[in-house]
Amino acid sequence: MQAGIIGLGLIGGSLGLALKDIGMFKVIYGLDINEIHMQQALSLGLVDECVSFCDIKECDVIFLATPVGAILDMLPKFIGIKPHATIIDLGSTKSLISDNIPQEIRKNFVCAHPMSGTENFGPKAAFKELLPHHIVVLTDLDKSGDLQVAMAKEIFVALKMNIIKMDSKLHDNHAAFISHLPHIISYALANVVLSQKNPKDILALAGGGFKSMVRIAKSSPKMWCDISKQNKDWLLESLEIFDKEIQVALDMLKEEDWEKLEKWMANANSLYEIF
Amino acid sequence: MQAGIIGLGLIGGSLGLALKDIGMFKVIYGLDINEIHMQQALSLGLVDECVSFCDIKECDVIFLATPVGAILDMLPKFIGIKPHATIIDLGSTKSLISDNIPQEIRKNFVCAHPMSGTENFGPKAAFKELLPHHIVVLTDLDKSGDLQVAMAKEIFVALKMNIIKMDSKLHDNHAAFISHLPHIISYALANVVLSQKNPKDILALAGGGFKSMVRIAKSSPKMWCDISKQNKDWLLESLEIFDKEIQVALDMLKEEDWEKLEKWMANANSLYEIF
Repeated sequence: MQAGIIGLGLIGGSLGLALKDIGMFKVIYGLDINEIHMQQALSLGLVDECVSFCDIKECDVIFLATPVGAILDMLPKFIGIKPHATIIDLGSTKSLISDNIPQEIRKNFVCAHPMSGTENFGPKAAFKELLPHHIVVLTDLDKSGDLQVAMAKEIFVALKMNIIKMDSKLHDNHAAFISHLPHIISYALANVVLSQKNPKDILALAGGGFKSMVRIAKSSPKMWCDISKQNKDWLLESLEIFDKEIQVALDMLKEEDWEKLEKWMANANSLYEIF
Repeated sequence: MQAGIIGLGLIGGSLGLALKDIGMFKVIYGLDINEIHMQQALSLGLVDECVSFCDIKECDVIFLATPVGAILDMLPKFIGIKPHATIIDLGSTKSLISDNIPQEIRKNFVCAHPMSGTENFGPKAAFKELLPHHIVVLTDLDKSGDLQVAMAKEIFVALKMNIIKMDSKLHDNHAAFISHLPHIISYALANVVLSQKNPKDILALAGGGFKSMVRIAKSSPKMWCDISKQNKDWLLESLEIFDKEIQVALDMLKEEDWEKLEKWMANANSLYEIF
């Protein structure tokens, strides 16, 4: 079997490395809109060969690992694909993609979201251990072909990933709270410190807490802007709920209600009873 | 020389372990308001012996590692201390403590803030490597005695800590942005997820980003409520600035201004040019 990966950044590149290890594919082809990324992917050994979209289209299994906007744009281009082919999209949002796959090739698609990443991006950020032992959410599996679902499961099991099945709308809701909202918060905190008169002096005092909180503020703006666009409604809802929580904190501070503040903090602690 | 540590949690306990290593003190005494913590500290070898406040008061160097409210409360009790004694307070806020030290013993005090911690607390959270190679901010050194400043510096250098000197008001401003605000944000994010209908299902999808963002939401409510109380004005100001930044993000999402959102994210990335 031949595999093709479109998008050779952190996710696509790491996938290439991991696929090489499991030995299911005779050859792993790659494609990226960025010529330099293709050269880097080849020299880093992320894929075996870089080819054209027409060649990728001939693969038995095709992975889409570009920003989500690019995934949406390329969906119609897969019309005419081999009937048995499996296309696995790895985008961080799922409803819009799932709903926009042309009907005649809907069964070829398996919509997946690997719940792992780092703040780094591009081919050089890729590493073999990114995906194994992490969760991958498969959505709207009833709309995929049996053959394609079986193939996707076989691959993710071989990659030692833990599969969770979910409706794409529920996925987008959950992903907003667990991934998209935290990114917006981290970007906001970084921007707050940068907006101060003397950010370098402030940063000189940074300990582990601050570093944790701004780590993902290093993430790709292109990728996260795209995700925000595609998951706008849920992200907006989660951000509004978060804003209300910040208002609660502001009020407790203004009112000097220390008893309530301590309880509020203790309630946050209780996350770790279920996490 | 004899050292005494009041407060045998994460900071005090870790300090005890580290002080044993540097060999400057013949004996390290401990004291905690919590009897169980004293027993744990002894069995974990964090200090050599637990003694009364009167005995601690006889030490050459005394470290205050309780929550900041308790530090404030105990300041007057040090009146009558030996003239050469050095008291090093390790609280996370500095102005209120610095301003409330009784004048007759002001020179005995060196106000310090080690910029390292973890989300864990209590004697069991202590570990020898917590303080070495981290920053310690020394504030208002002009108000401390020369002997005491020299002693504190000798200890922190022996602990391999990096000393930054600062006015206590500037420290409290910087600490609000770099440490206190991030804790409030982390608590708020944890509470947002907990407020949802199905927090366990959401948490099942958590990747590294979310884990980073809620790590410090596990921190001690008692300690962080105390810090919030003592640094209320700066924390409130930083939280209001953060809230405005969240409003900016909400507006960009509502207005679907993706170009502006991507620039806002790229601006956050630029933190790493100076950090």
